Amino acid sequence: MYCILMAGGSGSRFWPHSRKKRSKQFLSLVGKQTLIESTVRRFLPLTSPDHLFVVSNIGQKCEMEKQHLPVPSQNIIYEPIGKNTAPCIGLAALFVEARDPEAIMVVSPADHLIRQEDRFRKTVMAAVSLAGQKDALVTIGIQPDRPATGYGYIQIKENLGKLNGISSFSVRTFAEKPNLATAERFLKSGDFYWNSGIFIFKISVLLKAFEKYAPDLYEALLTLKKVIGNNNYEETLEKVYRQIRGISIDYAIMEKADNVFLVKGEFEWNDLGSWEQTYKLSKKDSDGNAIQGDVVTMDSRNCYISTSSGVIAVIGMEDIIIVQEKDATLICRRDRVEDVKKIVERFKRKNLQKYL
Amino acid sequence: MYCILMAGGSGSRFWPHSRKKRSKQFLSLVGKQTLIESTVRRFLPLTSPDHLFVVSNIGQKCEMEKQHLPVPSQNIIYEPIGKNTAPCIGLAALFVEARDPEAIMVVSPADHLIRQEDRFRKTVMAAVSLAGQKDALVTIGIQPDRPATGYGYIQIKENLGKLNGISSFSVRTFAEKPNLATAERFLKSGDFYWNSGIFIFKISVLLKAFEKYAPDLYEALLTLKKVIGNNNYEETLEKVYRQIRGISIDYAIMEKADNVFLVKGEFEWNDLGSWEQTYKLSKKDSDGNAIQGDVVTMDSRNCYISTSSGVIAVIGMEDIIIVQEKDATLICRRDRVEDVKKIVERFKRKNLQKYL
Repeated sequence: MYCILMAGGSGSRFWPHSRKKRSKQFLSLVGKQTLIESTVRRFLPLTSPDHLFVVSNIGQKCEMEKQHLPVPSQNIIYEPIGKNTAPCIGLAALFVEARDPEAIMVVSPADHLIRQEDRFRKTVMAAVSLAGQKDALVTIGIQPDRPATGYGYIQIKENLGKLNGISSFSVRTFAEKPNLATAERFLKSGDFYWNSGIFIFKISVLLKAFEKYAPDLYEALLTLKKVIGNNNYEETLEKVYRQIRGISIDYAIMEKADNVFLVKGEFEWNDLGSWEQTYKLSKKDSDGNAIQGDVVTMDSRNCYISTSSGVIAVIGMEDIIIVQEKDATLICRRDRVEDVKKIVERFKRKNLQKYL
Repeated sequence: MYCILMAGGSGSRFWPHSRKKRSKQFLSLVGKQTLIESTVRRFLPLTSPDHLFVVSNIGQKCEMEKQHLPVPSQNIIYEPIGKNTAPCIGLAALFVEARDPEAIMVVSPADHLIRQEDRFRKTVMAAVSLAGQKDALVTIGIQPDRPATGYGYIQIKENLGKLNGISSFSVRTFAEKPNLATAERFLKSGDFYWNSGIFIFKISVLLKAFEKYAPDLYEALLTLKKVIGNNNYEETLEKVYRQIRGISIDYAIMEKADNVFLVKGEFEWNDLGSWEQTYKLSKKDSDGNAIQGDVVTMDSRNCYISTSSGVIAVIGMEDIIIVQEKDATLICRRDRVEDVKKIVERFKRKNLQKYL
């Protein structure tokens, strides 16, 4: 069994804390460890460090090396350009295949928050058995507790019973991020789960799925397979990556395949998709403010106020996100955090790229 | 005729732009010149630079010297501690008296905004004649155009007619900053004027008033008079300033004296008492935002957003003051600017004095 941690995101939703060269997985959004560090530590009890791979972006190499992760350096794979999750997972599969073509791989984002780790690992192990038994593409689905509109959903079909106490199902369909009415319907129906982005499959099963549902990508993988470990690997990788389409594993394979299964994740999970979620997960004072760094407030309530450089004085504010870094400050209504991504795009037009 | 510019204020109302060592008069709150620079230039057509004195605080000496004001350096007087306006004006009077005991002096704060400068100077000249003719303590009163609660008021008694086109009155009483109901009554009555803090009197008349209404301060002035120009001046000044009470010229003399007159100031005047006033005087974009520096806004209206260091991104905010300096940021509702002073006091309790 091999674990692949995907750590190549750009993460402008956490600007100004996240930047082009320091994306979300390198932040300590909750607690002291960076998200990638927590993710590595979450997987280590399941496998040896030698079986743990990290896929990141070449632009983040510096930041990655600063992490001093307990992972052999040859297990850190850098993509020359981000092309979404399908090429990333395909590339990692080639590295694993070179070691053991019969291996099962667990693929996980490196920037999520997971609590109740024992239960998490138990769920992963159940998914690993299922993937081995059924030659299946397995995903972990999180039972929704609210009609979230920020997640993709997966609808289950048939209950397959429990594996070591973990429920498992066959999958009917994948659904994109819904609007609120649809999310409420999903929640009420009881057979929709949040898509955690964690996938488990045999290398051979995955590669067959690439061949069947994304033959263009499969062909690219065959080209890359020939050069892994060779002198011309980097050059070929860059050439291939320039040409292939960027597409998620969900779109490219999971939504099309007929051998998809889901195990039910009953642990605390959060994809930390916005500052609002960070606020919700943070400790608050008696005014409902979550505060980090030198901050003085007066008559202010239910705010997230964080500064890593300098002081912030806040008077008469409610339900606001304030994040200050050395050279940049964000001030945003809590119900507008989805627009952080958009405002950051405006920086280019205003010739303020240096702050990205 | 001599002009005395009082530039010793601490000005925590403009934190974080103003600090302990860089008080309001050294800021460019509106336009490019600092307020003290504008004030000096406003008075220069009335008198020679040699007749222009500036009184500041020793803690601000560095900042003062950076201003390169067109004033001889021996005309810049430093107080060892701020003791409000009465000691400040008394000390300046001693310096002027040493040059010309019959001189008339015009005393003005160095941190106000005045537009229509020709009319301003015409008003000062009318006040100078009145002070000379009547041996009077003269003040400039500003006709209110709204029931402001942030200013002191002066009630007129008798209309003395016009001097070079400027109306003049005898004064009935001084009133402290009123509440809104009282301010509305003042405005309606038509015989209340805003106290501009600008005073005009003969040196001899002023010193007699000190003798009569503030004999303790007068005695202190006699002590200082003996040491001006001597080796032991600084030592004596410090000793005297440590002992005397801090009191405004309004309380110590103007409210008690019976020879007080007012000339009507019909020029645009603003004491720039808060960030709200700075917002009101600033140019706004089509969203009503007044913006300085690297700022990106989205769906934000009627905000004052200024940064001298780094970028600020603002999403979904209305009626907010945001001021960012290298090591400090203020975020304050526009209707709460009076509390900036108070929040700055809280810094001490929180051991954040370094930001003051």
